[in-house]
Amino acid sequence: MRTHQLVQSWLENQLAAGRLAVGDRLPGERTVAEQLGISRASAREGIRVLEAMGIVRAGVGSGPGSGTVITANPGAALGSALRLHMATSHLPVNDIVETRLLLETWAAAHADPASSAMSEAAALLDAMDSSAKDEKEFLRLDALFHVAVAEAAGNVLIGAMMSSLRESIEGYTLKLTRTLPDWEATSARLRAEHRDIHTAIQNDDGARAAEIVARHIEGFYAEAGF
Amino acid sequence: MRTHQLVQSWLENQLAAGRLAVGDRLPGERTVAEQLGISRASAREGIRVLEAMGIVRAGVGSGPGSGTVITANPGAALGSALRLHMATSHLPVNDIVETRLLLETWAAAHADPASSAMSEAAALLDAMDSSAKDEKEFLRLDALFHVAVAEAAGNVLIGAMMSSLRESIEGYTLKLTRTLPDWEATSARLRAEHRDIHTAIQNDDGARAAEIVARHIEGFYAEAGF
Repeated sequence: MRTHQLVQSWLENQLAAGRLAVGDRLPGERTVAEQLGISRASAREGIRVLEAMGIVRAGVGSGPGSGTVITANPGAALGSALRLHMATSHLPVNDIVETRLLLETWAAAHADPASSAMSEAAALLDAMDSSAKDEKEFLRLDALFHVAVAEAAGNVLIGAMMSSLRESIEGYTLKLTRTLPDWEATSARLRAEHRDIHTAIQNDDGARAAEIVARHIEGFYAEAGF
Repeated sequence: MRTHQLVQSWLENQLAAGRLAVGDRLPGERTVAEQLGISRASAREGIRVLEAMGIVRAGVGSGPGSGTVITANPGAALGSALRLHMATSHLPVNDIVETRLLLETWAAAHADPASSAMSEAAALLDAMDSSAKDEKEFLRLDALFHVAVAEAAGNVLIGAMMSSLRESIEGYTLKLTRTLPDWEATSARLRAEHRDIHTAIQNDDGARAAEIVARHIEGFYAEAGF
């Protein structure tokens, strides 16, 4: 077993036994090293791996809020791996679009209008109006809106999967945008569709929300020449 | 930017520029350290993180086939993170079952009968017959069968997502199995359903394959008292 796997299964046991929980501070590398009988350098390496996987977040400063905190954010890990996977060209844009259609139509149909994710989505609608001319910023907010709607359905795993796709979505939409004839017209249409999705969910009309989401995702992809 | 992020974005650039590809050997930690202007210890740490994320695989020995190889297996990263997430109890079994229903009915409906994943699935059917009495081994093969069917649909991302769920599926089914009144009867039923899924895909009847998969996943969950 590799050192990082040792550290990971140690944390898994601590969590399962209730000795540590999400939000707690991770013991320092010295304690981890002692408990596992490994060197401090190995403990540090193992903790860095946990950090890269989105399982802990390194703190800053030295006050009571500092130190490494357990976060358990599985979306972060897949996000980085997927970006690398896309760089190898082993992950076609078409597969991302197909996956989005599957996850997002389900999520739109199940989104809870009263969830905090939907309030976040509403704030993003206004932010997109303000940055309609800045393509890069607009598409960043656009991807965040879609993740928020997915999270509003309340399934932790589907939310994490969509969140892991965020960077990949930002990447391919920005690339496709360069081939669009009229960004201003497209962005106006996208903004109107986002508001329609939001309204349908607020009206508890999941079927209509799912239908608009599908048309919205496919429409952009088709307009960009696919 | 953290060291591991530096190493990661360096590899991302190398891949995007075509200077490195999946299957290639990763340059040694000395070369990585020199190219990035970081210490060898930092380069090693960055490479360990890539390994933990399933992006590279550490080799053994010293022959021509040794060394660290670029693999790009995004399922591995999420798999580890999800296992930890489950240990924190932030990932309810119900969410996994819901996600499986979504991904697997889609995949069963789109599976290619001629894919190598379907040959793998067929071999797993026989292996499950041989180990029907060994619950743990049976459920390991069972999860592999479901991943193979998901991969047969040809969407890299959905295949990776299902593959990342493999350990979590093994984990919850093994737990639920303990509550079953008659394992022998359940395992006979599960095996028959697996063969029906396989046959429906071979007959190019995606709708029927999807229907049996849904009944199969929900049936086990319901029988175990949920």
